[in-house]
Amino acid sequence: MKAVILAAGKGERLSKGKSKLNAKPKPLIPLLGLSLLERAILSAKESGIYDFVIVVGYRSEEVVKYVEEKQNRLGLNIDFVENEEWEKGNGLSVLKARETLKEEDFVLLMCDHVFDSSILKELLEYAKNRERKCVLCVDEPENVFDLEDATKILLERNKPNAIGKGIKNYNAVDCGIFYCTAEMLDALEAEIGKGKYELSDAVQCLIDCDKLEVFDIGGRRFWCDIDTQESLEYAKNKMLKSLEKPTDGIISKCINRKISKRITARIVNTNLTPTQITIISFIMALASAAFFLLGEHKYLVIGGILAQASSIIDGCDGEVARLKFLTTDYGAFVDSILDRYADGIMILGLIFGYWMLHGGISVWIIGLFALIGSFMISYTNARYEGVFERPGGGRGIPIRRDMRVFMIMIGAFLNQVLVMLLLLAILTNLEVVRRVFSIKRIITKTKF
Amino acid sequence: MKAVILAAGKGERLSKGKSKLNAKPKPLIPLLGLSLLERAILSAKESGIYDFVIVVGYRSEEVVKYVEEKQNRLGLNIDFVENEEWEKGNGLSVLKARETLKEEDFVLLMCDHVFDSSILKELLEYAKNRERKCVLCVDEPENVFDLEDATKILLERNKPNAIGKGIKNYNAVDCGIFYCTAEMLDALEAEIGKGKYELSDAVQCLIDCDKLEVFDIGGRRFWCDIDTQESLEYAKNKMLKSLEKPTDGIISKCINRKISKRITARIVNTNLTPTQITIISFIMALASAAFFLLGEHKYLVIGGILAQASSIIDGCDGEVARLKFLTTDYGAFVDSILDRYADGIMILGLIFGYWMLHGGISVWIIGLFALIGSFMISYTNARYEGVFERPGGGRGIPIRRDMRVFMIMIGAFLNQVLVMLLLLAILTNLEVVRRVFSIKRIITKTKF
Repeated sequence: MKAVILAAGKGERLSKGKSKLNAKPKPLIPLLGLSLLERAILSAKESGIYDFVIVVGYRSEEVVKYVEEKQNRLGLNIDFVENEEWEKGNGLSVLKARETLKEEDFVLLMCDHVFDSSILKELLEYAKNRERKCVLCVDEPENVFDLEDATKILLERNKPNAIGKGIKNYNAVDCGIFYCTAEMLDALEAEIGKGKYELSDAVQCLIDCDKLEVFDIGGRRFWCDIDTQESLEYAKNKMLKSLEKPTDGIISKCINRKISKRITARIVNTNLTPTQITIISFIMALASAAFFLLGEHKYLVIGGILAQASSIIDGCDGEVARLKFLTTDYGAFVDSILDRYADGIMILGLIFGYWMLHGGISVWIIGLFALIGSFMISYTNARYEGVFERPGGGRGIPIRRDMRVFMIMIGAFLNQVLVMLLLLAILTNLEVVRRVFSIKRIITKTKF
Repeated sequence: MKAVILAAGKGERLSKGKSKLNAKPKPLIPLLGLSLLERAILSAKESGIYDFVIVVGYRSEEVVKYVEEKQNRLGLNIDFVENEEWEKGNGLSVLKARETLKEEDFVLLMCDHVFDSSILKELLEYAKNRERKCVLCVDEPENVFDLEDATKILLERNKPNAIGKGIKNYNAVDCGIFYCTAEMLDALEAEIGKGKYELSDAVQCLIDCDKLEVFDIGGRRFWCDIDTQESLEYAKNKMLKSLEKPTDGIISKCINRKISKRITARIVNTNLTPTQITIISFIMALASAAFFLLGEHKYLVIGGILAQASSIIDGCDGEVARLKFLTTDYGAFVDSILDRYADGIMILGLIFGYWMLHGGISVWIIGLFALIGSFMISYTNARYEGVFERPGGGRGIPIRRDMRVFMIMIGAFLNQVLVMLLLLAILTNLEVVRRVFSIKRIITKTKF
């Protein structure tokens, strides 16, 4: 399956107020660390598309050069087609790709539409059983940021009836994500012959001869048409918001994620890789353990701050990875291993620091149980692949890593290391006992 | 799908030399904690069969009473059919079940054939696509314990040609596991009308009119026809041997499994449940930790023996569960949790005992790293669901639980707790580092 990406437009409204030298062509405008065009390519790649036709027009040389520089790293087949008459309308741009498409079905994307890649996955799945009809993704009008500028659609009994920017009577909006058969190209050819250069002209033509279906995403997924600085800002905020996970713990939800999102929004523009961020967070945890070792209250405070900061940064690696399409199972694995070592070494630092000042063996024994309990929370979770971190896995004691590090910080601030370790030992191990009993119910439910 | 189990025979050769009072009817003869009939029922249950017709004959009241007592616990639908003329031949026993079968396909099993339940699973899968033909499981003659007594088959180009105990020319053996259509019952009726009462008469009839296929298990799975004390003993040894896992570690293979198999062969005849065995093993680990706490060499030796004994018993719970069809995900989960706590508490005992005698803080720090490393071995394994315990997961340092507990015992015997903990800390954490690097290769392999 090939994807045709339209990247011929100028994006005038986006570069308003900027000189031509400063203003980038629309496909190259950055959004959270990736250009719009790169984002469209990578979203398609996540849906299993590895062959691309990019239609360029306005400042085409710059766009082609930009993509060619990244092509090796992307590992994709990318052809370019130039549409010198790009100002006439986007329908013409699609038709220019005809020769490279060889009458096969293809996916049509706009470089200025950002979208959650699961939309495309679902569309491809849906189109599979549609017997060679074109399918257009639509959404509810209330989910659109700039409704005035959107291409509207009138659905009647879920069948499209009319399409156009100007139509008054509508109940859906075009998301700019198409599954096309060669009939789309035929329709374009016919319409362009009549002097109608817009894609929506050809789409209306397909509607008229009952060759178009719609796939309604019904507000379930994020997508946004980027035409103005405001819509760019809107998309950015929505995408940052989407980094929050339903499985986030209390501290993560109320503190860590709020801060890490802001940090991520900045470091996403640097070359820092998720693995480098993982390592930075780990080093911060080691540094916090070093301050804990010193034992005195003032050092404990610094250590506590470092521990909590490390826990916050620990969220950024995944966030950057998700925003830049860099998530890997291996990254998640290494992150979880380093988290466990960080947990262990921070607790060791606390124990040792306390023992240096106060002596006594109780801190060692209590600390060891706190360590066992912390590990067991992660271990039970790994054994049941996150079942305990899902809302369905029972409420339980919220003593996941976000809370444990937060408790360590509070304990350090209050100079109450022993009490804090005791609490940690009790809460973590209690939660493990709860999990052992609750998982029986969950397993039984799954089986029958 | 119903299963018909033939349980009408007397089993004369099995009860040779016993008075009638002592000799049990064949279906009730015990093999590793379960009667032959119970074993046949549970093997079929594991393949997803929940409806049974049991044909009883010799001492039928005893057999029915025995099954009815267990029926509630088994959670199965079991009908009984009596064949008073059981001495005539086993074909008649099958035909007696006709009324309850309602012309549907069924599975036919002999209570005196024990078999690995995956044979039945594979047969059902195979028969699915066979367009209403009867299918008979066959095996190679060399895999049969008592070839003289076996029902032989001559295959020509994988199609059956002749069947019978007495045939001279044969290249396969009947395993006594059938997938039957109603045509089997028609054939039986016809043959019995001619005075031929054996199942193999009807099977020959099906062969003659090309209505029988064979499913060749080719020595891949265990099955055995139990007719004599010798074959019972043979089956027992084979089944105990099958408890060894390809994933067993070195110590497990060379020491633990050898002993645990023998213990299992005994406790399988008691009412001890796998969970109870898990708990006994855990208590032994706690007891070993208590001796370690005392620190002196003589106590260390006792603790070391207890630790190793606990590790051996820890194998028995799974063995008993597998032999008695009692394996559950939950059981495996609880076992793994208690193992981790046992690890932690044994190491704590060793640290504390050593510190009481020699003082110094180094044992605490080293012990803590040994604890972290031990956990991390289990944690990395849980994260990748056993990939590191499979032969494919790379060789690595053999520092799984069997080896760790063995090292603890040797360390205790030699009164070298500190050296042993240091070794444990180094080896476990080194192996974790190796895993982090090796998993990248494994993940990449899986993906492409």
